[in-house]
Amino acid sequence: MAMKSWLSIPKGSGFSLANIPFGIISTKADPAHRPAVAIGDQALDIATFASRGGFQSLQEFPKDRLDVFSQQSLNAFASLGRPVHRAVRNYLRDVFRDDTPYPEILKENQALRDSALKPLSDVEMHLPMEIGDYTDFFAGRNHAQNVGTLFRGPANALNPNYNHLPVAYHGRASSVVVSGTPLHRPCGQVLPAPTAKEPAYQPCAKLDIELELGMFLCRGNALGQPITVDEAEDYIFGFVLMNDWSARDLQTWEYIPLGPFTAKNFGTTISPWVVLADALEPFKGPGLSNDVKLLPYLRESRGDNVIALDLQVDLRTSKGSTTTLSRTSSKNLLWSWPQMIAHHTVAGCNMRTGDLFGSGTVSGSEAGTYGSLLEQCQGGKVPIVLEGGEERKFLQDGDTIVIKGCATAPDGQVVGFGDCVGQVLEPLSRQAS
Amino acid sequence: MAMKSWLSIPKGSGFSLANIPFGIISTKADPAHRPAVAIGDQALDIATFASRGGFQSLQEFPKDRLDVFSQQSLNAFASLGRPVHRAVRNYLRDVFRDDTPYPEILKENQALRDSALKPLSDVEMHLPMEIGDYTDFFAGRNHAQNVGTLFRGPANALNPNYNHLPVAYHGRASSVVVSGTPLHRPCGQVLPAPTAKEPAYQPCAKLDIELELGMFLCRGNALGQPITVDEAEDYIFGFVLMNDWSARDLQTWEYIPLGPFTAKNFGTTISPWVVLADALEPFKGPGLSNDVKLLPYLRESRGDNVIALDLQVDLRTSKGSTTTLSRTSSKNLLWSWPQMIAHHTVAGCNMRTGDLFGSGTVSGSEAGTYGSLLEQCQGGKVPIVLEGGEERKFLQDGDTIVIKGCATAPDGQVVGFGDCVGQVLEPLSRQAS
Repeated sequence: MAMKSWLSIPKGSGFSLANIPFGIISTKADPAHRPAVAIGDQALDIATFASRGGFQSLQEFPKDRLDVFSQQSLNAFASLGRPVHRAVRNYLRDVFRDDTPYPEILKENQALRDSALKPLSDVEMHLPMEIGDYTDFFAGRNHAQNVGTLFRGPANALNPNYNHLPVAYHGRASSVVVSGTPLHRPCGQVLPAPTAKEPAYQPCAKLDIELELGMFLCRGNALGQPITVDEAEDYIFGFVLMNDWSARDLQTWEYIPLGPFTAKNFGTTISPWVVLADALEPFKGPGLSNDVKLLPYLRESRGDNVIALDLQVDLRTSKGSTTTLSRTSSKNLLWSWPQMIAHHTVAGCNMRTGDLFGSGTVSGSEAGTYGSLLEQCQGGKVPIVLEGGEERKFLQDGDTIVIKGCATAPDGQVVGFGDCVGQVLEPLSRQAS
Repeated sequence: MAMKSWLSIPKGSGFSLANIPFGIISTKADPAHRPAVAIGDQALDIATFASRGGFQSLQEFPKDRLDVFSQQSLNAFASLGRPVHRAVRNYLRDVFRDDTPYPEILKENQALRDSALKPLSDVEMHLPMEIGDYTDFFAGRNHAQNVGTLFRGPANALNPNYNHLPVAYHGRASSVVVSGTPLHRPCGQVLPAPTAKEPAYQPCAKLDIELELGMFLCRGNALGQPITVDEAEDYIFGFVLMNDWSARDLQTWEYIPLGPFTAKNFGTTISPWVVLADALEPFKGPGLSNDVKLLPYLRESRGDNVIALDLQVDLRTSKGSTTTLSRTSSKNLLWSWPQMIAHHTVAGCNMRTGDLFGSGTVSGSEAGTYGSLLEQCQGGKVPIVLEGGEERKFLQDGDTIVIKGCATAPDGQVVGFGDCVGQVLEPLSRQAS
């Protein structure tokens, strides 16, 4: 049976006692950026909670490190490591349980409740982590297959390396933004027609989304010392939803031979609450099957290590209609996060606390399950009909993309993410006239 | 006639009065990382200099910002902007001139000289900047032509986009290391033979160098607001030499379709002293000519905007022989730094103080001028004979690469970089058995 809380948690809330995600908030009354956890429709201001003795009954916490809860990012907390995250999450869950062993901490402490609990509607969310490097993987094999088929036919859809290693490229960390940040349509170089010889400068005409999961690291390794696949789990802090906006026409012209650049670096949106690795542990299962014999450094002792979340992509137009473009599952990945970490470090690359990985686009294999418009409109051949009759191939100015994600436990409790929301604004060209 | 200093500056020193480069030092007596400038064979500890009134005669400096000189990186100083860098550099040059207008500051202040001047041989150098994002361009067209010819023949050497935009990819910031840091030979996935179907895990057998210039930014732009090519000069802090180590066999297998990843992210070495943009201003001239009509956002009002430095690559073996592999000029670039900045931001990407750009490999067109071993050994076909008779195609364990760079003014004063040095260590495999 599901745990109950003394705090009223709306039925179906993704911020149940089974979750306890961490984020960085500010409020009108206190504009300082500070850590919080989400519970039901409330945020618990952890900076306030910690400074007023909230953690006094938590034995497993290093008491000289309470400063991690008054930082402007979660990096310091993350760097304490998974055993500490686990102890803090379990403790906070216990604090909120109806049968809490610590009623004096919060349940019966009206003064602290008044000062530390804020309605989510009153808090502003900020980037949860100071991101060192951002790496985008390409682990959604259905997406790779779908897009490869559009460009090269089904027989050559996947490149020869695809099933042997988690393909990835280094992304741009500076332009990762938190949900709710609008983005201007990018301008840049495109070939105005497939047969054109000269590029033109123009606003992106094929602005697309990519439905991804994001993962934050809590630990680093020394340069030159790879992380083994079986150690890698301890390096995972938690997860967010991600929209890796993509300018398809810019990408087509620029990406050979060194990969995507201006097509990707104008913005990447993440959901604001970091769902800790432990909260998603119960939802692990098989990913996509791989026929090739993996090299030993990618073989996990633990199988079935891919997280299964229900994901949904909605498009809201400036006219107010909302259409669900896609429903799919994050089990549509070929590689687990430990495999991605092992591969990223195989040649010696060093990770740092706060580094962000993207999974690559999560797609199913049939209509209604695609993680990009490119797949849904079949490369621009078939318009997508929205609620209310409007049509799209790619995004229009004013369109808002909302990504939702959650997993539901057998007891009915939901582990959910905050929405990952971004609106497309008109282009801001600064082309010389 | 060259300016003279009251400090003895060895003839031919790259740290002449015409230079005044900035770095981050520590000493045995004071292990704190702190800013310094190099002058002759001395380092002026700027933290000490500033804290003891050294800047009291500098009018143009914001007196409430002396804290920038007690930081562990140059980012805070850089963020004050080019007019401040210029004022500080001119002032320090004046302080060191034989006919200094401020003799009381240092020339005749033996106590401050004793405490703030340290022999370069006694200081340890550290990364000069906290690097946000690192981007590697591909602006060395001779290198692109040489390598493209090896792989695709001369007619198809350059991809269609090459002359239209500064091709680049996002690199890995975490593994940028300061000169002198040894690197382990990377291990990873390679195709063991061109006709092989399955990859193998093994130490890189084609470990290579790339001779590049690095550029640090001193300012950022808002997301969505491109920097125009004529504004871009104000965003440049200064320059370093760079060795963008490359694992050619890893790269061949992994790079399609998203670009280099483990082949590049195991380490990038930079020289320790940042030569300010103003110090290189006198050495600007034409780069490589470009026949295509550039889009307006890449057209500079100022022409001849490419810096001409004399560059040299030496290989020192573990047996003690040293061979100069290459002598070339940094004018062998197709794009200026302002063009790279304009293109990087054209779609809206935001820069931050401390971001690092690499130029791409600088090569000439004939033997003895190549910036990589790949070009010099013609893709592995022709061994390179070293002093003492040893041969190389790619690097062996124990080899040390030393990159040097300088420009000489008409008056004979030299603006030089600290050497960019890196040794290859044996691989540290953690492959599961």
